[in-house]
Amino acid sequence: MVRLRVIVTKSSFAPRRERLLKLLEKQQAGGAAFSHLPNVRYLSGFTGSNAVLLLTAKGATLFTDPRYELQAAEECDCAVTVARGALWSDVAKAVRRRRVKILALEAEYLAQAEFMRIAATLGDSVQLSDASGLAERLRMVKDAAEIDAIRRSMDVCGKAYVQTLKKIKVGMTENAIAAELEYRMRRLGAEKPSFETIVASGARTALPHAQPTAARLEPHRLLLVDMGACLNGYASDMTRVAHTGRPSKETRRLYDAVLEAHLAAFDAVRAGVTCAEVDRAARRTLKRYGYERYFQHATGHGLGLEIHEAPRVGRTGADILEPNMLITIEPGAYIPGAGGVRIEDTVLVTERGAESLTNVPKELLVLAS
Amino acid sequence: MVRLRVIVTKSSFAPRRERLLKLLEKQQAGGAAFSHLPNVRYLSGFTGSNAVLLLTAKGATLFTDPRYELQAAEECDCAVTVARGALWSDVAKAVRRRRVKILALEAEYLAQAEFMRIAATLGDSVQLSDASGLAERLRMVKDAAEIDAIRRSMDVCGKAYVQTLKKIKVGMTENAIAAELEYRMRRLGAEKPSFETIVASGARTALPHAQPTAARLEPHRLLLVDMGACLNGYASDMTRVAHTGRPSKETRRLYDAVLEAHLAAFDAVRAGVTCAEVDRAARRTLKRYGYERYFQHATGHGLGLEIHEAPRVGRTGADILEPNMLITIEPGAYIPGAGGVRIEDTVLVTERGAESLTNVPKELLVLAS
Repeated sequence: MVRLRVIVTKSSFAPRRERLLKLLEKQQAGGAAFSHLPNVRYLSGFTGSNAVLLLTAKGATLFTDPRYELQAAEECDCAVTVARGALWSDVAKAVRRRRVKILALEAEYLAQAEFMRIAATLGDSVQLSDASGLAERLRMVKDAAEIDAIRRSMDVCGKAYVQTLKKIKVGMTENAIAAELEYRMRRLGAEKPSFETIVASGARTALPHAQPTAARLEPHRLLLVDMGACLNGYASDMTRVAHTGRPSKETRRLYDAVLEAHLAAFDAVRAGVTCAEVDRAARRTLKRYGYERYFQHATGHGLGLEIHEAPRVGRTGADILEPNMLITIEPGAYIPGAGGVRIEDTVLVTERGAESLTNVPKELLVLAS
Repeated sequence: MVRLRVIVTKSSFAPRRERLLKLLEKQQAGGAAFSHLPNVRYLSGFTGSNAVLLLTAKGATLFTDPRYELQAAEECDCAVTVARGALWSDVAKAVRRRRVKILALEAEYLAQAEFMRIAATLGDSVQLSDASGLAERLRMVKDAAEIDAIRRSMDVCGKAYVQTLKKIKVGMTENAIAAELEYRMRRLGAEKPSFETIVASGARTALPHAQPTAARLEPHRLLLVDMGACLNGYASDMTRVAHTGRPSKETRRLYDAVLEAHLAAFDAVRAGVTCAEVDRAARRTLKRYGYERYFQHATGHGLGLEIHEAPRVGRTGADILEPNMLITIEPGAYIPGAGGVRIEDTVLVTERGAESLTNVPKELLVLAS
């Protein structure tokens, strides 16, 4: 078994918090309380399932429950408070003690009822503002440790796919293929799949979100696999399409069109261009083949501690690509009743272009029929 | 591969909606909009990832996006509206058309920012109330199809454990054991694990939420496995403890105490008793052994479409058990630095007692060291 470890030293979270404090200052908030776990992890290193991170000019404190006392002390490079009761009442005490007048909360993640309870706990002396999107904005651009983590996650995903391919034959069920892919990712070090593995064969490849079924792989059919690993908390994402036996002319044309769209989008990626420009490159190519109307989703999305992060690489994507952003490039074309093709890489944005982290060939793979 | 299928006919969701409408009437709401996906699924059959279910006296309508057009039509026994834009603006139109004055929303699930946007979309003419807990209350008591589904889910989980046990030997990593368990659940028909599989060995068994690591199984150590399957959407949950080689007297005593606590709690289960009484039965037994302070979590929890559902079987559990509720019974004792034991079954509440759905022996299993 390959054992992989990300080197994230404790000290690497403080600069992130400093950048976040600057964003908070701009919106005149005296502090922020993060409860969305990927943001908590990003800003403190904590990987447990229950925490609030309070961030003010006076420093950062992670609030968690007794189950995580040891773990929080090991993982976090900031102060840790182990709450014996409700986390938020301890947070509220700290907010009052630090005399925070305006506290930003994550309104896009906190449930309405929870938000109201927190507001009541904080009392009238604390004004609330919205911290949504602040950590997400920082998370768009990855640091060296994160890029390394995603590279390793992608590597595990790609290896698991290549290993599984050798075992796939006609008669195997979609479920069995998914089981094999996930098992191999696990054995290669992944904690879990980064999302529910998609394995679709035949006409079901035309459903972009097909879940694997008990259907058996038939001869002369498309096989679409969309998979990702979660390794040390970081997601990877990849889609490949194979075919059992020689593909028909129509299938070959569909594949070539999507591959060309993928490469066109990839070529459009570089620092300074908008996400919409990348999306347009894929769509323009598919249009030439008459497949544009069969491509209904976005060309890609950011990924990192979550499988879907900013930026969204779609028609209206106004975000401008920066070096060290990580996005997927995944155009597809889905012909109802016939079949679909999607080709997806996890891609690193660089100053002058892009680097694909997905080291799996993009040619249509022909399996024995 | 065993193929399992739950028989839920389309028509089985309407009675659930009728019961829910009665609860709504009691709180004077003219309708409710459910967006928490397990509730949507429970009330309509829809299994996709984006939907709102509007329920009024005039009927039920599921709102989803174009990706799920076909799937919604196949799965739901109510009207389906495929929204071309934002779901909630179509929901709002229907709410106004049906002249709903008070609409209940799931305030415990909707994000605060989303809640405010929905309120703005609905406009001043619609008053909002809270639908939280209504569907959850119905979901506590399972119908025959649900009990069957959980029985099958538990069966897959238990079989995967027994199959894996045969392969476990000293030197194997916790990660490899987890990979094997999950692979076997998948091969037996599960969509995925119902939660992140816990595999802990040696002193790490004392951490109730230990995630598997690259640590290798050593001789003369405890091995704790807490696992569950998600099969046709329904969760199962089970914990078993094994030991490599002959356990020490202390370990044997710890195991016996937890097993006795488990059986005492199981014996306390029957329709009419409170959850607190069941919890007390476990705690009382552990107290006799002097282990009470090493048992810090609740004795159990409901499960079904989610791994944690109402009722909570803890110290203050005021819910009264009813026939056809499904709960876990999982007392444990965790001695810091030494090790922990937890024994968990998924249990069906009956009129006169309980039936365990977990068909895996509860004796301490001794593996070759």
